[in-house]
Amino acid sequence: MGKVTCDMAISVDGFVAGPNQGPDAPFGEGVGDSLHRWMFDEPEANAAELTEMTAAGAFIMGRNMFGPSRGDWDLDWTGWWGAEPPYHGPVFVLTHHERTPLTMEGGTTFHFVTGGITEALERAQTAAGDWNVAIAGGAATVNQFLAAGLVDELRLHTAPVLLGRGERLFEGIGRTDLRQVDVRRTGLVTHLRYAVVRDGASPTATA
Amino acid sequence: MGKVTCDMAISVDGFVAGPNQGPDAPFGEGVGDSLHRWMFDEPEANAAELTEMTAAGAFIMGRNMFGPSRGDWDLDWTGWWGAEPPYHGPVFVLTHHERTPLTMEGGTTFHFVTGGITEALERAQTAAGDWNVAIAGGAATVNQFLAAGLVDELRLHTAPVLLGRGERLFEGIGRTDLRQVDVRRTGLVTHLRYAVVRDGASPTATA
Repeated sequence: MGKVTCDMAISVDGFVAGPNQGPDAPFGEGVGDSLHRWMFDEPEANAAELTEMTAAGAFIMGRNMFGPSRGDWDLDWTGWWGAEPPYHGPVFVLTHHERTPLTMEGGTTFHFVTGGITEALERAQTAAGDWNVAIAGGAATVNQFLAAGLVDELRLHTAPVLLGRGERLFEGIGRTDLRQVDVRRTGLVTHLRYAVVRDGASPTATA
Repeated sequence: MGKVTCDMAISVDGFVAGPNQGPDAPFGEGVGDSLHRWMFDEPEANAAELTEMTAAGAFIMGRNMFGPSRGDWDLDWTGWWGAEPPYHGPVFVLTHHERTPLTMEGGTTFHFVTGGITEALERAQTAAGDWNVAIAGGAATVNQFLAAGLVDELRLHTAPVLLGRGERLFEGIGRTDLRQVDVRRTGLVTHLRYAVVRDGASPTATA
């Protein structure tokens, strides 16, 4: 079985989106491209991280990451990403509404999971086999997985901005020891990689 | 005139202290040595940053950093640091209570400022001359200076832990663009250095 990973583009003050996300502001108000500029303006400098983000065998995302918060997307909404989403594999969407799987171009299939994070993880791990399962967001979903102790590796892509408001990662989670794995800075972002230390494992740092 | 700098030991989830700081738990409950272990266990590996933290010409700190939150320290409290505090220079303490300056061993003098952050900064800059002024904490004081746009350089010393609760840096501040200056990882901490981008200045990254 692979690892459970989580990549998040995040501000220095811990926000992963602005307030009031919606069709007109998919990353929330006041965010603009500040958190994701490194992806678009520096793809070559950040190629290693970008490749790794999408190399999972299956993905899990929250309901609000799949569709806008208002209205009912269950019947005809096909996600934010157009005909060919960037996942190229199975994506398990947490929701309260049953829906038949939705197959997109390029190998992405959205599966709708009504049994919560445990069911989503079981199904994703079965689908991923030896590959990693990536928790794709948003903040509330990542926080749920962190609080449950289900994330193995946290990869923060920290953009040099203080947003001041919005959706904060790391709300409602308990104390968790991490181990530093790697850090790398490019022109527009700092990539910080941490392993979650399990009970009984040593929090000793790697040099 | 030097820069206004701010060094903070901080968790990955943005806490600089646990809840209920007091004489029995100066860093707050549940924190232990998790945020500061790199200072005590790895002083040689982190010598550059430790030296720089204390190299300012003057320091500013909040009332709660100087003394415990409960009770009246104004008359006989001399700080947490014993006879010879580690500042070795003038320290301007924000307070609502007048008090004559308190001279300690080793060159530290605590000055008590009742005129808020603007008066504290003016007096500290006058005392520091060409040297930097360091905002020494705690979180509420740093947040006040950040919100007022008075910090030039933010140096986060990020320990590999999620604390989950406590005193959070970056509360109540507005959007602020930063520029990445440096990042360095040792065994127990990652040092992240940011310059605050002023209005009119270019947020272009340094390579």
